[in-house]
Amino acid sequence: MSFQNPVFIPGPTNMPEAIRQACSMPTIDHRSPIFGNILHPCLDGVRKVLKSESAHIFIFPSTGTGGWETALSNTLNSGDTVLAARNGMFSHRWIDMCQRHGLDVQVVETPWGHGLPADEYAAILKADTNHKIKVVLATHNETATGVKSDIAAVRAALDAANHPAMLFVDGVSSIASMDFRFDAWGVDVAVTGSQKGFMLPAGLAIVGFSDKAMTASETATLPRAFFDIKDMQNGYDNNAFPYTPPVGLMNGLKHALDLLLDEGIDNVIARHTRIATGVRLAVAAWGLELCAASPDVYSDTVSAIKTPDGFNATDIVTHADQVYGVAFGVGLGDVAGKVFRIGHLGSLTDVMMLSGLATAEMCMADLGLNIKLGSGVAAAQEYYRANPAAIIKDAA
Amino acid sequence: MSFQNPVFIPGPTNMPEAIRQACSMPTIDHRSPIFGNILHPCLDGVRKVLKSESAHIFIFPSTGTGGWETALSNTLNSGDTVLAARNGMFSHRWIDMCQRHGLDVQVVETPWGHGLPADEYAAILKADTNHKIKVVLATHNETATGVKSDIAAVRAALDAANHPAMLFVDGVSSIASMDFRFDAWGVDVAVTGSQKGFMLPAGLAIVGFSDKAMTASETATLPRAFFDIKDMQNGYDNNAFPYTPPVGLMNGLKHALDLLLDEGIDNVIARHTRIATGVRLAVAAWGLELCAASPDVYSDTVSAIKTPDGFNATDIVTHADQVYGVAFGVGLGDVAGKVFRIGHLGSLTDVMMLSGLATAEMCMADLGLNIKLGSGVAAAQEYYRANPAAIIKDAA
Amino acid sequence: MSFQNPVFIPGPTNMPEAIRQACSMPTIDHRSPIFGNILHPCLDGVRKVLKSESAHIFIFPSTGTGGWETALSNTLNSGDTVLAARNGMFSHRWIDMCQRHGLDVQVVETPWGHGLPADEYAAILKADTNHKIKVVLATHNETATGVKSDIAAVRAALDAANHPAMLFVDGVSSIASMDFRFDAWGVDVAVTGSQKGFMLPAGLAIVGFSDKAMTASETATLPRAFFDIKDMQNGYDNNAFPYTPPVGLMNGLKHALDLLLDEGIDNVIARHTRIATGVRLAVAAWGLELCAASPDVYSDTVSAIKTPDGFNATDIVTHADQVYGVAFGVGLGDVAGKVFRIGHLGSLTDVMMLSGLATAEMCMADLGLNIKLGSGVAAAQEYYRANPAAIIKDAA
Amino acid sequence: MSFQNPVFIPGPTNMPEAIRQACSMPTIDHRSPIFGNILHPCLDGVRKVLKSESAHIFIFPSTGTGGWETALSNTLNSGDTVLAARNGMFSHRWIDMCQRHGLDVQVVETPWGHGLPADEYAAILKADTNHKIKVVLATHNETATGVKSDIAAVRAALDAANHPAMLFVDGVSSIASMDFRFDAWGVDVAVTGSQKGFMLPAGLAIVGFSDKAMTASETATLPRAFFDIKDMQNGYDNNAFPYTPPVGLMNGLKHALDLLLDEGIDNVIARHTRIATGVRLAVAAWGLELCAASPDVYSDTVSAIKTPDGFNATDIVTHADQVYGVAFGVGLGDVAGKVFRIGHLGSLTDVMMLSGLATAEMCMADLGLNIKLGSGVAAAQEYYRANPAAIIKDAA
Repeated sequence: MSFQNPVFIPGPTNMPEAIRQACSMPTIDHRSPIFGNILHPCLDGVRKVLKSESAHIFIFPSTGTGGWETALSNTLNSGDTVLAARNGMFSHRWIDMCQRHGLDVQVVETPWGHGLPADEYAAILKADTNHKIKVVLATHNETATGVKSDIAAVRAALDAANHPAMLFVDGVSSIASMDFRFDAWGVDVAVTGSQKGFMLPAGLAIVGFSDKAMTASETATLPRAFFDIKDMQNGYDNNAFPYTPPVGLMNGLKHALDLLLDEGIDNVIARHTRIATGVRLAVAAWGLELCAASPDVYSDTVSAIKTPDGFNATDIVTHADQVYGVAFGVGLGDVAGKVFRIGHLGSLTDVMMLSGLATAEMCMADLGLNIKLGSGVAAAQEYYRANPAAIIKDAA
Repeated sequence: MSFQNPVFIPGPTNMPEAIRQACSMPTIDHRSPIFGNILHPCLDGVRKVLKSESAHIFIFPSTGTGGWETALSNTLNSGDTVLAARNGMFSHRWIDMCQRHGLDVQVVETPWGHGLPADEYAAILKADTNHKIKVVLATHNETATGVKSDIAAVRAALDAANHPAMLFVDGVSSIASMDFRFDAWGVDVAVTGSQKGFMLPAGLAIVGFSDKAMTASETATLPRAFFDIKDMQNGYDNNAFPYTPPVGLMNGLKHALDLLLDEGIDNVIARHTRIATGVRLAVAAWGLELCAASPDVYSDTVSAIKTPDGFNATDIVTHADQVYGVAFGVGLGDVAGKVFRIGHLGSLTDVMMLSGLATAEMCMADLGLNIKLGSGVAAAQEYYRANPAAIIKDAA
Repeated sequence: MSFQNPVFIPGPTNMPEAIRQACSMPTIDHRSPIFGNILHPCLDGVRKVLKSESAHIFIFPSTGTGGWETALSNTLNSGDTVLAARNGMFSHRWIDMCQRHGLDVQVVETPWGHGLPADEYAAILKADTNHKIKVVLATHNETATGVKSDIAAVRAALDAANHPAMLFVDGVSSIASMDFRFDAWGVDVAVTGSQKGFMLPAGLAIVGFSDKAMTASETATLPRAFFDIKDMQNGYDNNAFPYTPPVGLMNGLKHALDLLLDEGIDNVIARHTRIATGVRLAVAAWGLELCAASPDVYSDTVSAIKTPDGFNATDIVTHADQVYGVAFGVGLGDVAGKVFRIGHLGSLTDVMMLSGLATAEMCMADLGLNIKLGSGVAAAQEYYRANPAAIIKDAA
Repeated sequence: MSFQNPVFIPGPTNMPEAIRQACSMPTIDHRSPIFGNILHPCLDGVRKVLKSESAHIFIFPSTGTGGWETALSNTLNSGDTVLAARNGMFSHRWIDMCQRHGLDVQVVETPWGHGLPADEYAAILKADTNHKIKVVLATHNETATGVKSDIAAVRAALDAANHPAMLFVDGVSSIASMDFRFDAWGVDVAVTGSQKGFMLPAGLAIVGFSDKAMTASETATLPRAFFDIKDMQNGYDNNAFPYTPPVGLMNGLKHALDLLLDEGIDNVIARHTRIATGVRLAVAAWGLELCAASPDVYSDTVSAIKTPDGFNATDIVTHADQVYGVAFGVGLGDVAGKVFRIGHLGSLTDVMMLSGLATAEMCMADLGLNIKLGSGVAAAQEYYRANPAAIIKDAA
């Protein structure tokens, strides 16, 4: 009965029971005042999670990909120039989306496993004295490689160049799990989804717009309708969406925000770092290396683990599914077959994480890798013991 | 505890328990084969509900509005001409969306309460000898006015003119509740959502494309990414979505399709006609009239009921919510304040429907309308008694 | 999909969504402190619902019948004399249980439809100068006949005779729905179950013992083990049961108590009276009579409705189930075939109740009774309109 | 969010999602035919799980303790003699219950950790030439010590003595998890509950009676009402219970039986042996010993693990709860403080079990025991790898 095993994919995450129940709501009239009592706490709560005082929050029945499209289509015109680095599958996809919308993307090719090249950004921005670049895209956490980037450094590059370009950040696999500072970093659009740090099913694109981005939306001419933030804002002003909202999912978000904010967002972040550290110690105990090039870019929500040359890392994922009923993540794009990924975000305990590590060990041993059974588990156990979690018990 | 009252809005509908449970699924890996076992039955089942042999089905984490955008952006180029009638709020919104995408919409203004003017369409199409018109838009069931249109007549108009324009049909509030014939009517794109006839929460845009529409998508240049059907098809070929799919909602759709197809789609249609007839008899007993101009355009999923001049119909909806905990639909757009709407689609029994009629009676009486308590209930009771439903009991 | 129709049986009642979710709890360790946080609020809350300061509350994984057995076996000895009236099926069954336990039951035969004969009790108690009678049994609300009895009058009879017998009250279908005063009425044991006023599934016997009954339990010699209150008390003292407790059901009870006590128990009682009054007005409008002999004994949780001579009232119940998917209660025992019952307790709105009345009308008309469709509905509508409920909306 | 950790208590077990959903059923009329469609498959399915062709199955809203009381009170008379061994907490409690019912219990004191002394039984039965002994009690699996007994040997002892006593078996923690043969072993009454092998919440006593036990019930004079099997049988004959049945729990049982019988009861048994073997190898790797005296009595549903002298084993359980949010079982009765227990029955995967072992290791290390982290995990991993499970995936 494999459903009872936790999942170890980098989202969707394991869902707390209380959130599942909140999502599974009987039908209500989405035009009644009840919906307003769900909607506005969601907007306020997301703003807090983003560490912003003033971000304009929009939530669409969509996914993070729809959030990217919201960011672009509401702020830009066909032919506008955008600066982006390609250092993983998700930055790659975002660049592709820009090109489909007729944007001119200045791509900085960056090795997968590395973070965003803030220095190169700085140089390019400095050189762009005509301010052709309208937006700098930044993927905060590359889910494909388990690499986080230094968004503050990107902001610093913009500031150093005194460049007016907007800063758009894909925080799909970081927001609500890793430190994210909308205001402090001068983010203009932040994008995320429901199925990662918010511990919900997929189905919501969640975006935050700065005042500057809002202003840009007034003149942007890329066609948009479903993702139009002005329609959405008009809806919110009447406790509504411009179309039928996903009420249950919004109710789940409201409860997820209650859980996260009650815990304290910095405690949530620390919890993710703690769990992730155990995983990384296990990887080291196995004698393996992360795809992430250096500790400063280690992601706290997903680890992409390199397997030896000649070994197909995807076999681990298939084997785990078929033999142990456990889900890990495959390598994507440039690192397909070279890494397998362990997601460690959302609702996760030491106990759950250790079972994932134990399963990975069995799979690797089954497939002929020279892994000492129990070695990674022991390394994580040692860390978890020495750094006990604050146990959060669901109220009965 | 008002949540236990049924809702009488024209969607989202009341949800059968089994469908709610199917939606409330623990997290699985959406890249594992399990998801394929959910996805493909959904595609096949939707095709059957559309009465099509060959439609290409696409399902997006979105809503019907996103379905419209999928239809337009995958098949058209900026500046293309589209023919559309405006006879209610939803046709109005679709026209607006076309205009935002730079399409040239030839609008046939049609009185709200009337169906699509197939004769006018015929004349226009005949006159369009250069075939400037690329697409004819048709709203099958205007949710705002409770009016259905004759899609077969629109097809006949196209055929009579020997016009190659594609036929796009908004079936959001008709598909899976009222007779819809994708193949027989020569529909090129059909659009619906999850929260109406499929009895699910909002969150899915469901569209069907004909081969002709698929061919058009190969050269269409409107920008698209999230709603790109080619990406989606590539995903399906690998049992996946191009982004994270809403697994629980898809699982719910699979179960909803099982329920609908087990019942038989024609039985589902007859069930809706039966319930709707009772509602219409109640309206007549109250001495009121429908917004729909004539019996041939009466919708079987929603009735918009005109209230006397000088009376604000929206008060009924507010009063029902505040005093009786019951949801009806307000009038929208041109008929705001002039009608209130009773939704009668999806999971609904005689017993539930009678409670809605009884509530409407109390509300109208409370607000000073000259309504005889029990009169509409009695009219519906008489009809339901004489035409008993096939009781469908959920298996325990 | 008949499951979505409300039920109109005199328990189990319709369950609020929040209570169903509270019951559906993942497994926890019932020996962990979490269980204590469920258990003790249940004991305290039940005591409040009983309007007692000092009752000792015991909750068993059982039903009301088990509650009766708890009352008898913990307080009596084989051969003890008990006074009881037989005025319905449940008093009949309790008498039978006494006899099986070797008790000597002094039965006062009372017409079904009448309340307890407090006057006869008074005479008998007065005559029992040797105080042979150890316990007076009283069924507060005869579910079979829809008859409530005057427990205060029974207490007065005891007091007038200065008789030391204990007073045991079956409040299965009254407690948490109708006025019940453990302390004021000098009740020694009160018995109820989970599936009536507490709006839970069946599965709990809930009893309250006075200090006097506790004292009696110290010397009572009837054999008992599962229902031993001493074992249970020892368990409670350690946050436990003497065996595995039904944790989810207890968690549901905790939430039900929160709902009831937040509403205010007197408001709960008034709500039941209000709904019941509408039902009784409908019955009168149909030209039918209640089994209950006079207004002072009308039950506010269930109405047993007499049908004309020669008509089998059970046919209504069968027909409602088969044709309309609605559950009413059949007549039991002496009134089998002579009455059908409409339960109106627990989680119920005007809207739900009207649907039950409308269904009853259709059934009676279908079966040839001379019932004017809509007549009972109109009578109830009129009353409900004039006496609007306080709408209680579940918090989202 | 500790609720998402599996529990490792010897029942209630972890519940498969499908079973939880089956239990969480909206209210139906328990007197309608729907209930019969739940009830009879339950009775038939339990009979199959017991490996019986003809056992009479009774299910009460109660627990295993109520099942014992059912066994005794329906078959015996005050003063009857019963033979029983005391080798753990549950046999101890059953003996106590017999004494409370006025039975004369011939107790064979047996060291905790040992199985039933079939040889001593044989001698006693042989000596009982007057057949004073009416029933032999046997606890198949002592949950307190993790010891199973040889019921076939007890039957052989009865047969060898040609003794007519009935054989009553407590299979609470063995039935539906370990091999149990009602017919082959000549069992007269088998007792179990819902919360162990059936993977349900607590709340059902489940018993099977042989024809011989049924005959005994016709003359047995111990008082009984709630647990009277004759009333229950009369109820079943009308698709009912003699009181309100716990419908949702019965529906859950029906689904649990479907799961178990689809898997095949011998496969279920093998699955438990496999998981248990991994646990025992872990215990050995820790250098610890089981309470169970020898491999032939090792239980496949629970292991009681002895800790070193001077160490309070209960601290492990408290620590696991407080620090890791994990539930193990404490030692009970004679072995309180000397053992802690790991339950390994019901819905459990390798992955879940390994997380339990990893947690136990951390707890023991935290509390100063000389345990090598990862050692037990590795031992179990090695076994599970070499003996892969048949993965049972819940149908979506």
